[in-house]
Amino acid sequence: MTQKRIYNFSAGPSMLPLPVLEKAAAELLNYNGSGMSVMEMSHRSKFFEEIIQSAESLMRKVMNIPDNYRVLFLQGGASTQFAMVPLNLLASPEGTADYIVSGSFAKKAYEEAQKFSPNIKCAASTKAENFVRVPGQDELTLSPNADYVHICFNNTIYGTKYPYIPETGQVPLVADMSSCILSEPVDVSRFGLIYAGAQKNVAPAGVTIVIIRDDLLKEPLPGTPTMLTYKTQAENDSMYNTPPCYPIYICKLVLEWIEELGGLTALAERNQKKAALLYDYLDNSQLFQPVADKASRSIMNVTFRTGNPDLDAEFAKQSAAAGLSNLKGHRSVGGMRASIYNAMPYEGVQALVDFMQKFEQEHK
Amino acid sequence: MTQKRIYNFSAGPSMLPLPVLEKAAAELLNYNGSGMSVMEMSHRSKFFEEIIQSAESLMRKVMNIPDNYRVLFLQGGASTQFAMVPLNLLASPEGTADYIVSGSFAKKAYEEAQKFSPNIKCAASTKAENFVRVPGQDELTLSPNADYVHICFNNTIYGTKYPYIPETGQVPLVADMSSCILSEPVDVSRFGLIYAGAQKNVAPAGVTIVIIRDDLLKEPLPGTPTMLTYKTQAENDSMYNTPPCYPIYICKLVLEWIEELGGLTALAERNQKKAALLYDYLDNSQLFQPVADKASRSIMNVTFRTGNPDLDAEFAKQSAAAGLSNLKGHRSVGGMRASIYNAMPYEGVQALVDFMQKFEQEHK
Repeated sequence: MTQKRIYNFSAGPSMLPLPVLEKAAAELLNYNGSGMSVMEMSHRSKFFEEIIQSAESLMRKVMNIPDNYRVLFLQGGASTQFAMVPLNLLASPEGTADYIVSGSFAKKAYEEAQKFSPNIKCAASTKAENFVRVPGQDELTLSPNADYVHICFNNTIYGTKYPYIPETGQVPLVADMSSCILSEPVDVSRFGLIYAGAQKNVAPAGVTIVIIRDDLLKEPLPGTPTMLTYKTQAENDSMYNTPPCYPIYICKLVLEWIEELGGLTALAERNQKKAALLYDYLDNSQLFQPVADKASRSIMNVTFRTGNPDLDAEFAKQSAAAGLSNLKGHRSVGGMRASIYNAMPYEGVQALVDFMQKFEQEHK
Repeated sequence: MTQKRIYNFSAGPSMLPLPVLEKAAAELLNYNGSGMSVMEMSHRSKFFEEIIQSAESLMRKVMNIPDNYRVLFLQGGASTQFAMVPLNLLASPEGTADYIVSGSFAKKAYEEAQKFSPNIKCAASTKAENFVRVPGQDELTLSPNADYVHICFNNTIYGTKYPYIPETGQVPLVADMSSCILSEPVDVSRFGLIYAGAQKNVAPAGVTIVIIRDDLLKEPLPGTPTMLTYKTQAENDSMYNTPPCYPIYICKLVLEWIEELGGLTALAERNQKKAALLYDYLDNSQLFQPVADKASRSIMNVTFRTGNPDLDAEFAKQSAAAGLSNLKGHRSVGGMRASIYNAMPYEGVQALVDFMQKFEQEHK
């Protein structure tokens, strides 16, 4: 290595656990005595079948997924789910669905759904407040006859997360968990469908996790592409065609790493400790202010700013030079964002806070 | 390594060039002094932008792609293209397209298209002959007003390939080249659109190559998911959302390897030599017979059988034990299939022929 590994605060793709990368490197040319790389093996081989089955059973165990849910490994990222959810869950081309608009991706999901029915509704939005918080339960205007309610559980760009799970009665709750899946325990039984692009907490980009309750595996709307049909994917155990084998393999390694750490309860403690270190500093800083409302704070994406765009730019530049990478905030929010997913060690957040303190001293 | 690498004749995913895997392993933890793995880097980072731009420019150079074509890196495999092609190329929900049915995947593409228009036509089929050959130009019933003609250029399961490029006049020709892309030079200007799942000759599973002529980047049918819209993907340089970064990186390494070997002309010679070794043996064997008609033979997938299913099974078993993996044919053809893609060395085919000769001696 010509340079040591850095602390990468990217919103995604993002850091993977070092032991996972080391294992992947060690068996890259020859997996488990197979004489080939995981990248080279037939998805129908016993080697790969063991990998995908392990990934699924580990996901079930780690997330405590009830038996009446399927776990699918798909492609296309959350943006493809924005179409798959309405295509598969709307009862008809005039079906109704409620979308809670709590950020940029929640809004994209809402807009995509409108391609498939004229009855897609906005149940609540915090756009007027530039998405610094998520709507509360009492702000939701839910249709009792909706086919589903859609939320984005953690809003990567704004650094917010639902502090509660919306109550939707008999209507299935669908959640985009791309930036918070596997970060802490979650009661899967409260959701009809959970999906997540893997590239933040699970695996490299290229695999999408879908956790779907059995009763939602139904006939999709007419004209739905076969590849975008949950039922077909479930009936074929995610192998209707060749799945993204290598990302699924890394997903398995990440899940093994989570198990070794003590599962999601241990990981949540670790993540809360990391986030608390940063938020505590922000709450006391004279230079930096947190962006998200306290009650809606994400423990995965922490947004902050100085209030001076030039100083923000200077901070992003200097921190990158110091081996703290990708701290520039999304253009729609400005300022800075530190994404501190599972694989970011406590030491990385400590290094960031140390750097911020030094920067604050130099700019007061 | 607990065991040496084997010769893997899998139809896909399949062998990758050893120098590519070695390079990937060496820089897995730290790419080019970035301090991170390619699996961890933001797709908006300068490191990854350089990777995807290099992959594209190498693809253009190696395949000699004219300037009026775009190269896209998508997800979902050829099966997703089976839907994207009609969704984007049909002029209306009543649009006409001609499909040449030369094998199992050609048939799947034909059937998928029927979801999007009642006017999808079969221009020719060799199903009655169990697809041992591709239809000739004089067998094609083409509609002059079709929006496109679709072919599967190399039929993986049957071991056939078009020995010619169908003449379609002003109607755009669309080709699934999943199992023959980059195997030999091809005149891209004869096609309106070429697509290929990468997991045979280009990269690990998870990225799909699309080469599309500018004039076909038009508005798709109503209700087309955004992610399945070529125009959107092209306008966003394949980064409408997070692309499958790691498979794209391996694609770049594979293209560099192809360049070092002397490009597609050199590779075609190499591939023809490999195929000739095996076909010559088959043409003279008393035990094994080739399956595909001579005029339609693929140089990527070579199908053969003994005529005795028990003996075929025995051969598949013994060859696997000898380090010649995945020679069992597809269930719809039976017998054996040796997929000898770019990364299969001549020595691998020689080892196979040696083994077949020995097997023939023992079973005459």
